[in-house]
Amino acid sequence: MTRTIVASATREVIIGFDQPFCVIGERINPTGRKKLAAEMVAGNFDTVRRDAIEQVAAGATMLDVNAGVTAVDPNATEPALLVQTLEIVQGLVDVPLSIDSSVTAAIEAALKVAKGRPLVNSVTGEEEKLEAILPLCKKYDVPVVAISNDETGISPDPDVRFAVAKKIVERAADYGIKPHDIVVDPLVMPIGAMGTAGLQVFALLRRLREELKVNTTCGLSNISFGLPHRHGINAAFIPMVIGAGMTSAIMNPCRPQEMEMVRGANVLNGTDRDCASWIKTYKDYKPGEHAAPAPVQVNAPGDTASSSRRRGGREARRTAVTN
Amino acid sequence: MTRTIVASATREVIIGFDQPFCVIGERINPTGRKKLAAEMVAGNFDTVRRDAIEQVAAGATMLDVNAGVTAVDPNATEPALLVQTLEIVQGLVDVPLSIDSSVTAAIEAALKVAKGRPLVNSVTGEEEKLEAILPLCKKYDVPVVAISNDETGISPDPDVRFAVAKKIVERAADYGIKPHDIVVDPLVMPIGAMGTAGLQVFALLRRLREELKVNTTCGLSNISFGLPHRHGINAAFIPMVIGAGMTSAIMNPCRPQEMEMVRGANVLNGTDRDCASWIKTYKDYKPGEHAAPAPVQVNAPGDTASSSRRRGGREARRTAVTN
Repeated sequence: MTRTIVASATREVIIGFDQPFCVIGERINPTGRKKLAAEMVAGNFDTVRRDAIEQVAAGATMLDVNAGVTAVDPNATEPALLVQTLEIVQGLVDVPLSIDSSVTAAIEAALKVAKGRPLVNSVTGEEEKLEAILPLCKKYDVPVVAISNDETGISPDPDVRFAVAKKIVERAADYGIKPHDIVVDPLVMPIGAMGTAGLQVFALLRRLREELKVNTTCGLSNISFGLPHRHGINAAFIPMVIGAGMTSAIMNPCRPQEMEMVRGANVLNGTDRDCASWIKTYKDYKPGEHAAPAPVQVNAPGDTASSSRRRGGREARRTAVTN
Repeated sequence: MTRTIVASATREVIIGFDQPFCVIGERINPTGRKKLAAEMVAGNFDTVRRDAIEQVAAGATMLDVNAGVTAVDPNATEPALLVQTLEIVQGLVDVPLSIDSSVTAAIEAALKVAKGRPLVNSVTGEEEKLEAILPLCKKYDVPVVAISNDETGISPDPDVRFAVAKKIVERAADYGIKPHDIVVDPLVMPIGAMGTAGLQVFALLRRLREELKVNTTCGLSNISFGLPHRHGINAAFIPMVIGAGMTSAIMNPCRPQEMEMVRGANVLNGTDRDCASWIKTYKDYKPGEHAAPAPVQVNAPGDTASSSRRRGGREARRTAVTN
């Protein structure tokens, strides 16, 4: 049974076929969020703190942490900023973290200060990436997200994407990294642009699970790009990928509709034993409402405690930034 | 490619692996609806008419019609009442119908007056049922729902349920009925009582599709029996069964959350070509709303026209009877 172990200083989480779906909160990422990028550059981490607390309160299993504030010389600024962001987040919440950067030096700097066993996000099938990232994963004994593209870009052919994933798993093995420490992202295309995008992913997920025996993830909201009412498509996509074998996703846990589908699919997939999490979350549910948030898990609430009261429910749904 | 053809007087619908999910509206059924049963016995079909129009307006592909108002000597009353109900419904809406009765004489009486090509609901693996229903299906050239139980009851073992389905398909073949005219119901257990109920159904659906090459259906809401916020579980179940190969379900189309997941799964499964139905339904969607209803398809609105204005959206969600 494939099990990817990630951990914070105090909490271990298993990503696996027999585990509840792992929700990796995507919010702490300045890509496409100009205001957040400006705040982080200015040393203001209020939004980062609020996003950390709100995502955990909403039910995130892990948090992705990205500090890519600029495309101009990121090597100069990103390592220090990623370290600073990571330390703030891991001081505030106790879920495991995903270190998300395209800058190798930033990933290594973050690995040096990260507590527990973070996930590295990511390596691709590009030769330069493989040679930079895999030795780091081995050195720090951490799992890594493997994205199924290479120097030739993202292939529209799912067989090519599978072959890239296979190559990464094999190259990782050369470094002594086991398949259970590779979490493959098969790459999700927008269904509005490619009508077979869903069927492709479902088939790829089954092959990745059965043939490579790896855990899987994706940037979930890509599927609905360009369509109206994206959250409805995202919500329907979640039970389908879980049914096809996906074990985690990088997504926005502050969307009640999507999280409801994660919890429902866990019940139906048999990973929410005795429906305990479902019953706890929805026992007082009334039609027209959205789920009560999960209990907050905060190490040191600090000055963000007030913002945590605004989490979850209909109110959060209105205030959440639409991705 | 397996295709089950059903039709009303004016409209043909195909149930098939490459078709949008077939939503069989469940509302016209007095079982567990004492008020409706009393109305029907008294010759009052206002609720039947309203349920017919509202379900079609909400997006039902077909309507199930059941007139089982009593457990006391149904043979005496049900044939005439089912005929009356069926004639009212087929005079009002133009979707294909499912003739739902446990009384063979009622099914035959309804088949005599039904326009188009209705679906018979249902036969089981019980010898008496097989011998009563299959000749009727052959005689009237109509497809039939095959429920996977027999004289020994409903087996908790999915292999036994598969074997019962296989037996029905084989027995039907003896009568000259093709597998594409059998729609198997693998029987859905409540997940709250049996934690493997979901996994069982997903595995059965794949086998039914791949080995028996039949279309499939189920009483969808059984899955959530006994749990809080049943509609959330139902909503998550829909994309999972569609992903596993189910091609129809007997369900309540007046629940916007469930219908949104049907429409989303059709997009993701590639059966909503160019996302046309999704875009048409949700192009003006605003967060917090539910979907605008589909256009009403009414042959003769009569005195129920006013009630059709209350269909769909948040209002319908509040007024719909919870199953």
